[in-house]
Amino acid sequence: MALKTPEQYKQSLKKLKPNMYKFGKLITDVTTDPNTRGTVEGHAQIYAAALGTEYADVFCTTSHLTGDRVSRYLAILQTADDMIANCKMKRAAYNLTGTCTGARCAGHAAMNAMWPTTFDMDKELGTNYHDRLKDWLRYAQDNDITISGALTDAKGNRSLSPSQQPDPDMNVHIVEVRDNGIVVRGAKVMICGCAAAQEVFVLPGGAYKDADKDYAVSFVTPKDAPGLTLVEARHPSDTREAEEGFDVPVKIGGTTQAYLFFQDVFIPKERVFLAGECKYTGSVLANFTAPYRAAIGGCVAGQGDVMAGAAALIARANGLSTKAFNEKLTQMFVNNETTFAVGVAASALGRKHPSGAWQTNTLLAHVNKVHVATLPYETKRLTQEIAGGIAEIGCLPSYVDFTNPVYGHLVQKYLKAASSAEARAKVARLIEWLTIGAGVPGCMHGGGSPDGAKIVIRGSAGLDRSIGYARRLIGLDEAIEEPAAKK
Amino acid sequence: MALKTPEQYKQSLKKLKPNMYKFGKLITDVTTDPNTRGTVEGHAQIYAAALGTEYADVFCTTSHLTGDRVSRYLAILQTADDMIANCKMKRAAYNLTGTCTGARCAGHAAMNAMWPTTFDMDKELGTNYHDRLKDWLRYAQDNDITISGALTDAKGNRSLSPSQQPDPDMNVHIVEVRDNGIVVRGAKVMICGCAAAQEVFVLPGGAYKDADKDYAVSFVTPKDAPGLTLVEARHPSDTREAEEGFDVPVKIGGTTQAYLFFQDVFIPKERVFLAGECKYTGSVLANFTAPYRAAIGGCVAGQGDVMAGAAALIARANGLSTKAFNEKLTQMFVNNETTFAVGVAASALGRKHPSGAWQTNTLLAHVNKVHVATLPYETKRLTQEIAGGIAEIGCLPSYVDFTNPVYGHLVQKYLKAASSAEARAKVARLIEWLTIGAGVPGCMHGGGSPDGAKIVIRGSAGLDRSIGYARRLIGLDEAIEEPAAKK
Amino acid sequence: MALKTPEQYKQSLKKLKPNMYKFGKLITDVTTDPNTRGTVEGHAQIYAAALGTEYADVFCTTSHLTGDRVSRYLAILQTADDMIANCKMKRAAYNLTGTCTGARCAGHAAMNAMWPTTFDMDKELGTNYHDRLKDWLRYAQDNDITISGALTDAKGNRSLSPSQQPDPDMNVHIVEVRDNGIVVRGAKVMICGCAAAQEVFVLPGGAYKDADKDYAVSFVTPKDAPGLTLVEARHPSDTREAEEGFDVPVKIGGTTQAYLFFQDVFIPKERVFLAGECKYTGSVLANFTAPYRAAIGGCVAGQGDVMAGAAALIARANGLSTKAFNEKLTQMFVNNETTFAVGVAASALGRKHPSGAWQTNTLLAHVNKVHVATLPYETKRLTQEIAGGIAEIGCLPSYVDFTNPVYGHLVQKYLKAASSAEARAKVARLIEWLTIGAGVPGCMHGGGSPDGAKIVIRGSAGLDRSIGYARRLIGLDEAIEEPAAKK
Amino acid sequence: MALKTPEQYKQSLKKLKPNMYKFGKLITDVTTDPNTRGTVEGHAQIYAAALGTEYADVFCTTSHLTGDRVSRYLAILQTADDMIANCKMKRAAYNLTGTCTGARCAGHAAMNAMWPTTFDMDKELGTNYHDRLKDWLRYAQDNDITISGALTDAKGNRSLSPSQQPDPDMNVHIVEVRDNGIVVRGAKVMICGCAAAQEVFVLPGGAYKDADKDYAVSFVTPKDAPGLTLVEARHPSDTREAEEGFDVPVKIGGTTQAYLFFQDVFIPKERVFLAGECKYTGSVLANFTAPYRAAIGGCVAGQGDVMAGAAALIARANGLSTKAFNEKLTQMFVNNETTFAVGVAASALGRKHPSGAWQTNTLLAHVNKVHVATLPYETKRLTQEIAGGIAEIGCLPSYVDFTNPVYGHLVQKYLKAASSAEARAKVARLIEWLTIGAGVPGCMHGGGSPDGAKIVIRGSAGLDRSIGYARRLIGLDEAIEEPAAKK
Repeated sequence: MALKTPEQYKQSLKKLKPNMYKFGKLITDVTTDPNTRGTVEGHAQIYAAALGTEYADVFCTTSHLTGDRVSRYLAILQTADDMIANCKMKRAAYNLTGTCTGARCAGHAAMNAMWPTTFDMDKELGTNYHDRLKDWLRYAQDNDITISGALTDAKGNRSLSPSQQPDPDMNVHIVEVRDNGIVVRGAKVMICGCAAAQEVFVLPGGAYKDADKDYAVSFVTPKDAPGLTLVEARHPSDTREAEEGFDVPVKIGGTTQAYLFFQDVFIPKERVFLAGECKYTGSVLANFTAPYRAAIGGCVAGQGDVMAGAAALIARANGLSTKAFNEKLTQMFVNNETTFAVGVAASALGRKHPSGAWQTNTLLAHVNKVHVATLPYETKRLTQEIAGGIAEIGCLPSYVDFTNPVYGHLVQKYLKAASSAEARAKVARLIEWLTIGAGVPGCMHGGGSPDGAKIVIRGSAGLDRSIGYARRLIGLDEAIEEPAAKK
Repeated sequence: MALKTPEQYKQSLKKLKPNMYKFGKLITDVTTDPNTRGTVEGHAQIYAAALGTEYADVFCTTSHLTGDRVSRYLAILQTADDMIANCKMKRAAYNLTGTCTGARCAGHAAMNAMWPTTFDMDKELGTNYHDRLKDWLRYAQDNDITISGALTDAKGNRSLSPSQQPDPDMNVHIVEVRDNGIVVRGAKVMICGCAAAQEVFVLPGGAYKDADKDYAVSFVTPKDAPGLTLVEARHPSDTREAEEGFDVPVKIGGTTQAYLFFQDVFIPKERVFLAGECKYTGSVLANFTAPYRAAIGGCVAGQGDVMAGAAALIARANGLSTKAFNEKLTQMFVNNETTFAVGVAASALGRKHPSGAWQTNTLLAHVNKVHVATLPYETKRLTQEIAGGIAEIGCLPSYVDFTNPVYGHLVQKYLKAASSAEARAKVARLIEWLTIGAGVPGCMHGGGSPDGAKIVIRGSAGLDRSIGYARRLIGLDEAIEEPAAKK
Repeated sequence: MALKTPEQYKQSLKKLKPNMYKFGKLITDVTTDPNTRGTVEGHAQIYAAALGTEYADVFCTTSHLTGDRVSRYLAILQTADDMIANCKMKRAAYNLTGTCTGARCAGHAAMNAMWPTTFDMDKELGTNYHDRLKDWLRYAQDNDITISGALTDAKGNRSLSPSQQPDPDMNVHIVEVRDNGIVVRGAKVMICGCAAAQEVFVLPGGAYKDADKDYAVSFVTPKDAPGLTLVEARHPSDTREAEEGFDVPVKIGGTTQAYLFFQDVFIPKERVFLAGECKYTGSVLANFTAPYRAAIGGCVAGQGDVMAGAAALIARANGLSTKAFNEKLTQMFVNNETTFAVGVAASALGRKHPSGAWQTNTLLAHVNKVHVATLPYETKRLTQEIAGGIAEIGCLPSYVDFTNPVYGHLVQKYLKAASSAEARAKVARLIEWLTIGAGVPGCMHGGGSPDGAKIVIRGSAGLDRSIGYARRLIGLDEAIEEPAAKK
Repeated sequence: MALKTPEQYKQSLKKLKPNMYKFGKLITDVTTDPNTRGTVEGHAQIYAAALGTEYADVFCTTSHLTGDRVSRYLAILQTADDMIANCKMKRAAYNLTGTCTGARCAGHAAMNAMWPTTFDMDKELGTNYHDRLKDWLRYAQDNDITISGALTDAKGNRSLSPSQQPDPDMNVHIVEVRDNGIVVRGAKVMICGCAAAQEVFVLPGGAYKDADKDYAVSFVTPKDAPGLTLVEARHPSDTREAEEGFDVPVKIGGTTQAYLFFQDVFIPKERVFLAGECKYTGSVLANFTAPYRAAIGGCVAGQGDVMAGAAALIARANGLSTKAFNEKLTQMFVNNETTFAVGVAASALGRKHPSGAWQTNTLLAHVNKVHVATLPYETKRLTQEIAGGIAEIGCLPSYVDFTNPVYGHLVQKYLKAASSAEARAKVARLIEWLTIGAGVPGCMHGGGSPDGAKIVIRGSAGLDRSIGYARRLIGLDEAIEEPAAKK
């Protein structure tokens, strides 16, 4: 069986050549370094769950390539049910880790984006990208690897296209084409979960025109490829991760984002899936964003579940009934289920692509992005409101002070309410972590910004059809033209 | 084929004995009386669409009883796809009529609610309700009839149960059991579309305990049964419906609600589906509300589509580009798609009942009720905001003044903007009708109130499971009890 | 004393030459015609309150011209306290009438807008507009008259300026200048409360440039001036106003809007306050909109108060405790107080103009417009949510049916809950009237649209100052330029 | 002159005996310790501004005790204008520091709360608390000291009153009464700005009944009183404060909260202002919360200003026009001005107390608390939305990596957009700090929780009066009783 154990997974990560830095230091072992061990543990939860009993069907499915039981993160979405299962898996992953496990999720989205696009390219251009992708995927499934997905370029000045930038490297581009592959340069930034990944799946960062054809490039590369350097970005309270005690309340999860610097990295042609065919970049983006933005509703619902649970715990620890917070908890449930449900609906109303891929409904997926960029923020606010002052910013002493031999007893005496002081402090710290700490996910711009989603919504909502309904209802035939937009 | 034409449908309505009143007068022909012809026309649109080309598959399906092609409004929901199709049908019905076509929709929900419940009763109690229902449904399909669904009782004092009311008739109840049937008394109120219905499907209005067993009753009756009297309620601007011109902008739709007074109406036993088995009333309600509240998201999305179209038309008629209203239109699209999508997701995540019925997901259906009770109100507000003053309350002269021989030319001269005065006035009137006129649907309390939905949400959202996730993340074993709610 | 009694006020209205139409008919007596008597009664409440005990100080003040006790609606705002009193007066007027009493309110705003502007013009141009205005105001105070304020032109195509319109009359303009006055043509539309007014105060409808100087005109005219014709617009359920019983629940209030057609109306020069000085039109608008948009927060709060009261009554009539609706009522209170408070703050933070006028804070006044265009809509929705189905659209039979000799007893039997059937029906009808009936105010676009307010907000919010704060905090000196807006 | 320089202020802090801990260590000098120097610098800004030119009138006023020019933070609020000036001062303090300067603000609120209460007590009970307070205040003004205000007790189990707690120390209480003073025990927790304070002003934490009279205690104490120990709580990213570079973007501000442990602290009677008179505790709370909750709207507006500035800067640094974010910026402006304006209105509509104190309007102050607990959260969300991914959580490398000699050039190369890399990084870091970092204020529960405010709103909103309006409008005399609340 292809499925790996958490231990096998971590061993595999240890074997990679260290090329990741934080705070000016090389991270020699991502599985033990305080800056990365949390995200590795989070991803390891997925390996464990796949082999366990309760969640096996959530995290595993059957490979349509081999018939093997494989991680759902390495499977091609082929039906509405596959895509709904993907939404559920994202929710479960958050339930288990409290965090983004981006190195499985974004890589999964990337391979699924390239599946129909490479199929179309091969059919229309006579290329063999689809076969390359299929071969690589078989390898990935066989080894049950974890793959980051890298879409976002450094971009430079947002008013200029890649080729217009003063520095041509602001977006990843092909600097050399060789018989056996290509050489790429540039940076992918804010890439999630790289510390926990064995490989990186790169997509073009935008829909490009001819002038930017060198930027139309997709490939997959080992994370430790020569010329590739990673720097981990910092996040709130990240230095706590080297501390002891409950100030990092979650040890089995954690989110990281990295900057990936490609300094003339060679990519063998078997791992290149798009190289200059800029007219397909739009379809790559569409094939990436629709399932990604549908399923992200499951992610944030999953974290919302944890927030609801934490809010209930702290209320009780404070000595209050959760019933006193019925309205607020209900709103949290509504928020959680809404992002989950809109994703499920986008899944259900998709359509089959000739390549066998299931294509998520565009309109609903982008509607979900708008919700994902708003509702979880209200859920966080409500969590803090229920929790009372103790879980608001800056209101809980450190673990070191909690356990101080001289005055720690005072801290503990006065933190005790309807549970032990320690239980109350742990839950309060969890809420800080979830709402204003390292556990907060980047759901606003991750996978693209809500303003971009709104443009897609306007393009796909069918306003002309709606105008037709209105006209029919009142029997209106007169043409009424759209004037030029006023300044 | 069982499908009837609009003309056959109307002829059938004409044959019913008149027993419906409004403004103190008996309505002798619902197809021509100004108070009811609009809603009849609205329902007739459905008959027409079923026989047309564009919408046939939306409004028709195959009977699982006979294999005949029947109206989807007369079919039992058996799969997720059936239920998704139901959501789409509701949206299309609104697109075509701008209004609630409640006499098909609520009856459909009622029969689908009784399908699994009668199945369970027969199995557990040895009754033959399910067969009765099946027989009646075959008849209904064969004759393609339109059936109101009647759930809401007069209720009296909301703090008292039916049997505690000073007047025992405040809820419909069985006053006599005969060999061949039952006699019922009471009132069902605010029942939608009765004018357009041939029959009425009655459900119990609540989940009852033993003391209220006489109130546990479900049956179907011809609308013109002896002892049944209907009074149409009034709605905004209802007297306009007897006027000429554009002040009633929509002639092919309209919503009505009636009060049904049952003064010792006899129901033959073949048409009785529940009579005293109070322990099943909870399941009737659950089986009614879940699909109803899921699908109502399609309804309000459908009207939201019309509002988006009308808003775009009036903007252009005012001389403005719809682009100037991009943010507002996008929010309208988001609102429309959200209620639609959450309903679709509730459909997709349902489960099969042994009776063959598809049971919509409870949690998501009730989450949708909350959205339905809020989002359309914002959509209306946005429509008025885009429209400018002309479509706000009280800002457009009457059709009579518009066409007055003495000063009508002045009205027209000054109503002209970027379209003809008449086109602009018609669209403005449509917006009044949709946002603050007779076209406004009763989506707040129709099919039950949002506060009731919130209770279901709290019951089904899985807070204990979420607490478990939070505990697992921080390794918390200590029990933290729920205290009694504070006063 | 200058204050008139309600009876004197009505007698004065009766003396005006009839020139107002609705439904194709001339309204010969506005005090008795069903289409106008409600708004006249509403305005009469103000006369009564001014002479009563409870509200006298709310509705009266001391004239700074004569020292007489005069209606606050005829006084110049000279201090922050005056303007705060204005906000309170607007709220009280709504409390007493449930409606807009626009013929006192908008005229008051118009005269206050012209006070500083005419002062500046006279000083800078050597005109004598300010003295004219002072003379007229003395006359208005002496006779305690009611004056509509007319700002909104028909406008035609919104993309074109007045002089660019194909029809030059789309905005009111001067068509002839005579030695003793001017002749004006055009239409002012959607003007509130004209039926209850003796005079009309006209302001220019926009801030005009030289090309549109003929449209820069302000004057006051008797409502029955030769050449002036009024057509009342229709509003929801307006024909009910000729009916008996509770279907028009409020007899002492009512809102109307009229279209005013100026067909070459002569205005004597003593009543002309601006004629061609287009560079002052911007200041007229600013001087009008700031106090108007501040005080309108009091209006909608006043109606919100009535909604809160009605919601509490219907809850109890339904047999439910208002405590069950604590969250909803609290939100209604918050909404009411917010629009009131932001108006009060705009008043408090104004500044003194050399003319003696108090100028309301621009930024806060326009922020309030945004709230006024959103919060009352939520208040309405909450009112309907609390009320239950009976007060939602189309759910209550007519008074005629309620009192029908044959079946009226059935209607009454089943409407009874925890109060009498009649009390419950009356309250439900009040809620319909307030939320979706003739009592709904035009708070979205009345006094200008929220999008216009947002432009003012952006212009006055001080973004550059805020950028300075951010720079100072991080010690940032580097210039970062605003790029051109992207298409 | 009483006003001190920033340097004098800091010297005075240095003279206090160290009794404050964080991370297990005694903070020997709060002006230089990385954990406290930021908040000290923030408070020092106020001293500097008071002596400068631009803000002198904002931060200073005339003592009504001595006629001296004193810090407004040490003055008694006596008029509406004083209270409006207080709102403006809070906004300015945030503009200058980006943070809460709680040690001046809460102490100011505490002394103003006790002013009318001690006046009433002396009059009714013959005590001499008011004179004690006056004497102390004269001293405070003469020395221009900074005073923390301490209200919140540890509380223990929220369902139990202080005397019902298993541990009687969960709320600060009098354990001994001596001739010359009292001895107190307990903890005040989450007290803002203590590091920057010279004294602490203690108020009772609730409105107490007789059984809890020992908990009714108010006094002021030097921060370094024997028996008083402070532990600083931790906040997001607090360890960064010991780092170099831009990762702590703001050096002239910072918020801290401390736990204050009173282990039998002696308070001389001249500094005791309430000791056992529990019936006055309700009025203390009311006198504290109303001005506090009004003015806090200015605080969060002040930080909102900084967020608007930061958002504009990052948009431009990204190469985008702020015009592209017009809707979002406008919403931020609306949010900022709303909390500011409702506070100003609460100030303007207050009333004079016989003691000379100005009492802020209760209803509007608590309405503002509701806004303060919601609107700033949306402002933060919008700031992150405008900023793009770079300012979202976890997306920017550390200063150490930015300046790393080996790969720092890569980080800088790829962070450059339309400004320098450093400017862009600094602004992005400021946004992290403001929205999810150490700069986030505790505006949810600081000064009391929104649910508490809602209870006050319901009590003071005048529902019965509103019911009267509704009754009068429809001529309803029938009594309709409030039923018992349903379970």
